[in-house]
Amino acid sequence: MAQKPSIPKGTRDFGQVEMARRNYIFDTIKGVFQLYGFQQIETPAMENLSTLMGKYGEEGDKLLFRIQNSGEKAALAPEKGLRYDLTVPFARYVVQHREEIVFPFKRFQIQPVWRADRPQKGRYREFYQCDVDVIGSDSLVGELELIQIVEEVYRRLGIRVCLHINNRKVLAGIAEVIGAPDKMIDITVAIDKLDKIGVEAVNAELIERGLDAAQVEKLQPILNLSGSTADKLSALKSILASSEVGLKGVEELEIVFDELEIVQCTLDIELDLCLARGLNYYTGAIFEVKALDAQIGSITGGGRYDNLTGIFGLPNVSGVGISFGADRIYDVLTELDLFPKELQSATQVLFATFGAEELHYALRWAKVLRAAGKTVEVYPEPTKMKKQMGYADDKHIPFVAIVGGNEMETNTVMLKEMASGEQKQVTLEELIVRI
Amino acid sequence: MAQKPSIPKGTRDFGQVEMARRNYIFDTIKGVFQLYGFQQIETPAMENLSTLMGKYGEEGDKLLFRIQNSGEKAALAPEKGLRYDLTVPFARYVVQHREEIVFPFKRFQIQPVWRADRPQKGRYREFYQCDVDVIGSDSLVGELELIQIVEEVYRRLGIRVCLHINNRKVLAGIAEVIGAPDKMIDITVAIDKLDKIGVEAVNAELIERGLDAAQVEKLQPILNLSGSTADKLSALKSILASSEVGLKGVEELEIVFDELEIVQCTLDIELDLCLARGLNYYTGAIFEVKALDAQIGSITGGGRYDNLTGIFGLPNVSGVGISFGADRIYDVLTELDLFPKELQSATQVLFATFGAEELHYALRWAKVLRAAGKTVEVYPEPTKMKKQMGYADDKHIPFVAIVGGNEMETNTVMLKEMASGEQKQVTLEELIVRI
Repeated sequence: MAQKPSIPKGTRDFGQVEMARRNYIFDTIKGVFQLYGFQQIETPAMENLSTLMGKYGEEGDKLLFRIQNSGEKAALAPEKGLRYDLTVPFARYVVQHREEIVFPFKRFQIQPVWRADRPQKGRYREFYQCDVDVIGSDSLVGELELIQIVEEVYRRLGIRVCLHINNRKVLAGIAEVIGAPDKMIDITVAIDKLDKIGVEAVNAELIERGLDAAQVEKLQPILNLSGSTADKLSALKSILASSEVGLKGVEELEIVFDELEIVQCTLDIELDLCLARGLNYYTGAIFEVKALDAQIGSITGGGRYDNLTGIFGLPNVSGVGISFGADRIYDVLTELDLFPKELQSATQVLFATFGAEELHYALRWAKVLRAAGKTVEVYPEPTKMKKQMGYADDKHIPFVAIVGGNEMETNTVMLKEMASGEQKQVTLEELIVRI
Repeated sequence: MAQKPSIPKGTRDFGQVEMARRNYIFDTIKGVFQLYGFQQIETPAMENLSTLMGKYGEEGDKLLFRIQNSGEKAALAPEKGLRYDLTVPFARYVVQHREEIVFPFKRFQIQPVWRADRPQKGRYREFYQCDVDVIGSDSLVGELELIQIVEEVYRRLGIRVCLHINNRKVLAGIAEVIGAPDKMIDITVAIDKLDKIGVEAVNAELIERGLDAAQVEKLQPILNLSGSTADKLSALKSILASSEVGLKGVEELEIVFDELEIVQCTLDIELDLCLARGLNYYTGAIFEVKALDAQIGSITGGGRYDNLTGIFGLPNVSGVGISFGADRIYDVLTELDLFPKELQSATQVLFATFGAEELHYALRWAKVLRAAGKTVEVYPEPTKMKKQMGYADDKHIPFVAIVGGNEMETNTVMLKEMASGEQKQVTLEELIVRI
């Protein structure tokens, strides 16, 4: 026999149970997006390299999968690459279609992306992203609705989470008041690591990045702020009193927290001044969501940006968006055993038969059951009982309807519940109710 | 401003209305597949080139999109390519996972494929395929269920169709009885064109392909068979009396037609001896579905194969499958104006407000409505009435709930039905019922 075929490293096949579980996650998320009027779009897997290059930093450019040209152009440098994320194609889409789009534009997008990263545990070369954004409005209702979406998605999935929120303007204000306004990025990159590397290492990194000891010293009260959200906001207001942008950030946070109270949001939300998020295009609110009962890092994140479409020539369009990490959510649901049991099997009842007549009888019944919305399989050939039962077992089908001569005479089937092994002769009407 | 960004030729962006319509098609098809116990799988966009090469003929090899290697291997010949169809990855999947798969294996798959074809009207370089197969059983219940699926999918979509059916064994029998058993492929390729080029041109092509005049003469009664299905089958039985394989094909057709009668299938089905289908891996039944009210060619097609997985070293696994052509179905639904009107808008009601207090009031109402399963948008800022109404118009939102001081006092909203222009003051309970 030939060598067993395989797939490229870093890619995955999704079998039937995995797909049912992934669809459960995506359908749950989509259902919530739609309640808020977000609508789906899709962009092509291939983008022009000119769209992708220079958007993800030097390292990112190297991780783009390039498509070889076809035909006569095959020898030339590639002109197309595979989508690296959903954000840049979204920005491209907004600029390209700006005449048709109704703003504020509320869209979501669930598609795979590709990165030529070194594959390792939990890191794939093909994976789905699941992004939701509203663009073309600077209203903080955007932030509010995304937080409400997080609340509802995780309520439906049964995952307990904490949402961490911060604001880039507050971080800019902090840089300003400690006397290092040009170091905002350095400061945020360093303090973003506070959780992982601790305060000593962060301080060392800040010095390395060009802050002086006095500036690092001035930063400490902010790293150590505690108390309720109201306490933190009020302390920040005095610390940032001399920074216009800083106070604006505090005000934005206050408005979002006020609105959350108005809609009685019950989500666990923490104002986290150490949250910075790596991506430099954020300009206002930033979010990250962590599962409380699993050690897995952020499972959702995002923020407000003011110039995403600027790279394609359309400046000053404000938006806010978040991205749900489907693979990590899958892992959390698996670890906490939260997937609904019925995802194991798509089929409610299997018909088992022992002859051509019985098979025809089963096909007739199956038709009626399907018209009633039941998912039904008929084992395709009248073969050994054991084989047909084994099929039901392997596919976790909960009921088998056995058809023999006696059942045909009495217009019934022998219904076996696989979990208990109990058998009972039932009519068609009884069967519809039972399964 | 920078040059307006664009996408590679032959690819498409799908906007919100298009996506809603595409999802309607896919969800309809998936819903029917699931009633029969078919379950979804997904395979990676990238396959090893060794999996893809040599499977689609010389022409197909040229149309594969190749992925440039990353890192040190970049200079070497590509090792990966984009999926060209769903059939070869499915065969690869079955062989690779044969130890875990429960046979008969009923799977469906809805994913994009990529072909470096010259783009033209209706032909894209990226398009979705939608395949359903049962593999690992030679029972004709497979054929029956696929026909039932065709019946139900097009019933739900509201498209009137005719299913053309033939059997490759009958075609082999015909080649045998006219004395050209080695010319089965040539004969089928030629008579496949009967509809398009007419009988004269087909006969000329048959001569060109090496048949002699006597053989072409012998073929004529078969090309001209008419009458009911029973008439045709009975005539075929005498014509093919000397061919074992031919008679086997007739028998298979008889069984399928019998079973269709047993389940009272009402689909318009035509036994079409001129149907050959180009793909050479079919060995039994072959199908094609045409829309009766649109001139667009086949919108669904497939057949029985006995050796799909042989190319990957697992011979003699019989299966049967069909593929729904989503793009063509989309075009038929558009042409016949059959898309449900509600796909135009995802949102049932938009709240329009004129101040911060009103906005908060609207946010509270929106929360209650969403908890009741309604899709609701709140215009994110209290701005000019005209702008908010324009937004509802542009997005085809059927109702606008206007909130002013008077409404807040009386705990109501002014509900405007956009189509009629009618306005009425309603309570929250009345609003839930109304939309």
